[in-house]
Amino acid sequence: MALIVQKYGGTSVGSVERIQEVAKKLLKFKNEGHDLVVVLSAMSGETNRLMTLAKQLNDEPQGRELDVLLSTGEQVAIALLSMTLAQMGVKANSYTGSQVRILTDNTHNKARIMNIDNSRIHADLSAGRIVIVAGFQGCDEDGNITTLGRGGSDTTAVALAAALKADECQIYTDVDGVYTTDPRVVPEARRLDQITFEEMLEMASLGAKILQIRSVEFASKYNVPLRVLSAFTEGGGTLIAAEDPTMEQALISGIAFNRDEAKVTILGVPDHPGIASQILGPIADANIEIDMIIQNTGQDDTADFTFTVHRNDYSKAINILQNTATKLNAREVIGDDKITKISLVGVGMRSHAGIASTMFKTLADEKINICMISTSEIKISVVVDEKYLELGVRALHAAFKLDQEKYV
Amino acid sequence: MALIVQKYGGTSVGSVERIQEVAKKLLKFKNEGHDLVVVLSAMSGETNRLMTLAKQLNDEPQGRELDVLLSTGEQVAIALLSMTLAQMGVKANSYTGSQVRILTDNTHNKARIMNIDNSRIHADLSAGRIVIVAGFQGCDEDGNITTLGRGGSDTTAVALAAALKADECQIYTDVDGVYTTDPRVVPEARRLDQITFEEMLEMASLGAKILQIRSVEFASKYNVPLRVLSAFTEGGGTLIAAEDPTMEQALISGIAFNRDEAKVTILGVPDHPGIASQILGPIADANIEIDMIIQNTGQDDTADFTFTVHRNDYSKAINILQNTATKLNAREVIGDDKITKISLVGVGMRSHAGIASTMFKTLADEKINICMISTSEIKISVVVDEKYLELGVRALHAAFKLDQEKYV
Repeated sequence: MALIVQKYGGTSVGSVERIQEVAKKLLKFKNEGHDLVVVLSAMSGETNRLMTLAKQLNDEPQGRELDVLLSTGEQVAIALLSMTLAQMGVKANSYTGSQVRILTDNTHNKARIMNIDNSRIHADLSAGRIVIVAGFQGCDEDGNITTLGRGGSDTTAVALAAALKADECQIYTDVDGVYTTDPRVVPEARRLDQITFEEMLEMASLGAKILQIRSVEFASKYNVPLRVLSAFTEGGGTLIAAEDPTMEQALISGIAFNRDEAKVTILGVPDHPGIASQILGPIADANIEIDMIIQNTGQDDTADFTFTVHRNDYSKAINILQNTATKLNAREVIGDDKITKISLVGVGMRSHAGIASTMFKTLADEKINICMISTSEIKISVVVDEKYLELGVRALHAAFKLDQEKYV
Repeated sequence: MALIVQKYGGTSVGSVERIQEVAKKLLKFKNEGHDLVVVLSAMSGETNRLMTLAKQLNDEPQGRELDVLLSTGEQVAIALLSMTLAQMGVKANSYTGSQVRILTDNTHNKARIMNIDNSRIHADLSAGRIVIVAGFQGCDEDGNITTLGRGGSDTTAVALAAALKADECQIYTDVDGVYTTDPRVVPEARRLDQITFEEMLEMASLGAKILQIRSVEFASKYNVPLRVLSAFTEGGGTLIAAEDPTMEQALISGIAFNRDEAKVTILGVPDHPGIASQILGPIADANIEIDMIIQNTGQDDTADFTFTVHRNDYSKAINILQNTATKLNAREVIGDDKITKISLVGVGMRSHAGIASTMFKTLADEKINICMISTSEIKISVVVDEKYLELGVRALHAAFKLDQEKYV
């Protein structure tokens, strides 16, 4: 008997039949004696339908009104699930974000949760009811409806689990867990039973798009055990939790990669203090997000400065950099939008030497040239030509025997 | 400069283009210096779409959850209109029923408004904003979402007008006012400039389906001048207001009729006290609504008892009555589901004799047999064979010269 918060995404409630499947799943958990709080996204397609309507009437809809509009999507879903449960003889109540009172700041469209009133939820659970909460939404202090931004339902679920001190927060999605790498690239990729918050953050931010980064940060901060499972198939999924020193630890948890990167380099800039901000300032002003940054000393007291951006921002970044190059009297601006980033992630590497050299040797054996290297405590990333993506990831997956469970 | 509450129905906001038309209309009123509070229904079709989803999941959805579901319809409409106004440079804020705080009792699906908090609305109006309110909905004391039932947006508008002490409540619909009778039956039917609350109540309940009866009752109770206008064409519509003794008064305001009636008669029941309730009790228990009731003394200390019901309830009523007839030892049960009711309505008839006899003579001249007669202070209703409906209404419309303005 546990208190479990479960979140189902838009695909999981995308049709009458799927809502019925979710209800059956809930009934099973209920019959096992668990207390259940369920967070739902809008039925798939609904948010886009509403957005299309809005855009026909206003190029840039006001944030406040967009939240009034979009929050209806989840509201429809929670009512429908509650009705389905009632039809099956299961007592349930649905609540919008405002009704629970999920209090947020007033940043419309990407509000942050400030506080959750759990009194109504506890009362319903005590009365034997399943509680269904609209994800993605809350209200500010003045009662204005707010939304948390895309994927915010994950955040709602984790925040509720934290507020209710739930035993586990289960995120049901269309994949059955977190894999050592993308199975479409490496058929031998293995589902991980467990991964730490830190590893998941590195995996997620590097392009393994399973969970909202923010919800993982939130879960980590409040130490809420988070489990990713499939809404459509059976299985234990992957548990994302705090590092447990008593537990055996995998050396490498997974290999993430990102196909959307491009790199730009400004060569021969005068090597003096403040040069980095002179180069990156105009980039940031143009709202271009930067990922890896590398600065090398070049020839004759000059430096070479390289960073990666999203591929969509490539031409914009090159243009800005050419202006900067003229101002700074730099030698040249070059770039490449046919690159990819491959990252090894694992808390085990903290206590283990030799990971980096194995990684570089593996790539070298495949004749893959490394353009950039960046490391953190639990991750090593390399940038290579995009044509080597599959070859590189497969080679590394095999070299670190990720198809087998292997502990440090 | 006035404070006006305007209500637009589902057809008026049924598409992106129509929402834009409403916004233009509002801009015009705003530019004339009026303060505006706008009440919207859900886009036409939306409520049915949601209802269909619900019915697929539950034959009889819980009232509470149905309200959570259906209230999203208006919420979408108010956000879209607010965005449209913003695109035109007009400041506006939208509010759900809960957000305004339209407090209702907790009778889900047909809640009654208890109180309206007008502080946010006044603050917005003072700040020069148009206030847009979701019709048809409110919340109970515990914050549960409630709805007022079909057509409830009219009630919301009138209740807001009363709470705000608005100068006028304008109901925009797909007809351009209240007519002396249905123009499809009598092409000479004339739009009334003005009609009293009482007359409108008689007209509405008799089948002229323009306004919700409840909203007219509400307007009458709080003396809110109510105007029915077309959302699609220009024109002053019809003002529904309290009777004004200083004003010229039409003799007859209009002719209402109802095609959906059936009559049932139980003949030869023992004429003793309590007989009416013995007959009507089982009918009421079966949730059959009764309209006209007539009791005549029959032969040999027995009575004949006739009443009308909705045509859909005809067979059910006959069956119940046959049981009753056996119990009461009555002679016979007969009925007719091919009847229609025609009613003359007008406050002028209170002070004028001879209306009834003119009515009966007009029908007799057309060889129309009258099956039942029922009268009230401001109305005379007759039941005739349904084949005489058009003939009867046209003859009466001509006899009372309703195609011309005529005052007592």
